[in-house]
Amino acid sequence: MDLVIVGSVALDTIETPRGKVERALGGSAVYASLATSLFCRTGIVGVVGEDFTDDHRRLLEGRGIDLSGLESVAGGRTFFWQGRYGADPNERETITTELNVFERFRPRLPEAFLGAGHLFLGNIDPELQLLVLDRFPERPVTACDTMNYWIESKPERLRDVLERSDILFVNDGEARQLSGETNLLRAARSISAWGPRVLVIKKGEHGAHLFARGEGFIAPAFPLEDVVDPTGAGDTFAGGFMGAIAAAGSLEDEDLRRAMVFGAVAASFTCERFSVERLAGLTIEEIRERYDRLAALARFARD
Amino acid sequence: MDLVIVGSVALDTIETPRGKVERALGGSAVYASLATSLFCRTGIVGVVGEDFTDDHRRLLEGRGIDLSGLESVAGGRTFFWQGRYGADPNERETITTELNVFERFRPRLPEAFLGAGHLFLGNIDPELQLLVLDRFPERPVTACDTMNYWIESKPERLRDVLERSDILFVNDGEARQLSGETNLLRAARSISAWGPRVLVIKKGEHGAHLFARGEGFIAPAFPLEDVVDPTGAGDTFAGGFMGAIAAAGSLEDEDLRRAMVFGAVAASFTCERFSVERLAGLTIEEIRERYDRLAALARFARD
Repeated sequence: MDLVIVGSVALDTIETPRGKVERALGGSAVYASLATSLFCRTGIVGVVGEDFTDDHRRLLEGRGIDLSGLESVAGGRTFFWQGRYGADPNERETITTELNVFERFRPRLPEAFLGAGHLFLGNIDPELQLLVLDRFPERPVTACDTMNYWIESKPERLRDVLERSDILFVNDGEARQLSGETNLLRAARSISAWGPRVLVIKKGEHGAHLFARGEGFIAPAFPLEDVVDPTGAGDTFAGGFMGAIAAAGSLEDEDLRRAMVFGAVAASFTCERFSVERLAGLTIEEIRERYDRLAALARFARD
Repeated sequence: MDLVIVGSVALDTIETPRGKVERALGGSAVYASLATSLFCRTGIVGVVGEDFTDDHRRLLEGRGIDLSGLESVAGGRTFFWQGRYGADPNERETITTELNVFERFRPRLPEAFLGAGHLFLGNIDPELQLLVLDRFPERPVTACDTMNYWIESKPERLRDVLERSDILFVNDGEARQLSGETNLLRAARSISAWGPRVLVIKKGEHGAHLFARGEGFIAPAFPLEDVVDPTGAGDTFAGGFMGAIAAAGSLEDEDLRRAMVFGAVAASFTCERFSVERLAGLTIEEIRERYDRLAALARFARD
């Protein structure tokens, strides 16, 4: 096991100007692991109900993802999210959120997971993120995600998680909320002071910024002509990033930059179909091909 | 004369969260020429009133800008704009627009300007842009800018201008309005079909996209910690771009990419002070130094 992902496994009903899917596979651990599994051996820790089908299981296991940390609650229902996007993919409206079995989720890590060198703590209660961290005899390279809800409700615990993390993923809105700063550079400096030596601020179609050891990197997004469904793009970005980092086995500047671009590329594929439809059949060759195209789009000569 | 700029010369009263200036020098031809003059010999064609002072004139002439095409109307008042920005620099509210002498502006091109190899038609009535184009015995490399108002009121004439232009600058909102497409890639394809072989879509703090001969380039914006006043940033971008193009004397792919980055860098300086305060004292060395910093921020290895 190279990388352990703890996060949500969900069924999503999603409506966009391009169509609708009902109770399709989703959740942060699902999107992230489908991306990381292209780069390294991945196990996920999560919880599902009886409506999580054998087809869902086969889809993930078919990608080599270890599901031994995926608890199934008899008689329970899987975390459910329903949302709608307007013509602007950045505007998303949540119609329903049913936590279901996720409400009482307590991560259970199989012994085989505890030797992993890399850990991605998806957007869950910071208390649970800390419990997971405590389980590892040797601290893995740790990345975490969070959201407005935890920033507001458990800022102290979240700060504890940040102090013990190497990498933090947030989007631009969360970075502003977390820091109280409107300007992204100021926000980044403020957040970096709390612990994570690598900060990734995702800006959707506008790319992403990396802040590490006082250095920075700006990754472009891969431009898409058709954004069918942006659900999971941020989690896929984190997955592509973490997969590339686990494969590189380093947090050196060059590796971080490449990981940013792999994250951007992976996320772009997610947006091209509903749910995990595009991601589920994606190959590392397709990732590499698009990486090269993005490199060509962003290249310019020194003065 | 290497480059002629036709556009507005204005006095601006600007309020931002960082302060306020009253009747400060502005206008598209002013911002653009202050940027181009760092790269090549520049002349501007415009009109001012009696409130355009000797200090204003000295400021521009001190940068080597040829004002022999700047008409002064006795008893007239200079184009005046008053606006206000919120905490988000992208949200701008126009409080007052007084066209004044600009309302009856008819561009008068000195003979010495007609041999220029490069022409930048700032955001003015497309009828006037066509009149200017007709004056040149040999068509210079021509760039044009436009705005929502002309897109709505004179779409046919604007199309004529586009057919005779090499380069079009628009911002993302204008590209969407001009094409009727929400998606920027689709918008770019639609607009490119009308004539300009080089299309630049500016996205403010999110950088800019270049579309040329089916190829693309994504330029990052230079990240700023303090945005004091974004007025004129788009015109400065166009100026930095056109100055670099005139200096290179080519529209080859490499030169277009470098011009995009010079545009982004020049625009970033404009935002750091009110009005033209930062631009007026800027050196080409500062531009080059920031170009290198932006190159370092955007660099990543091929896969």
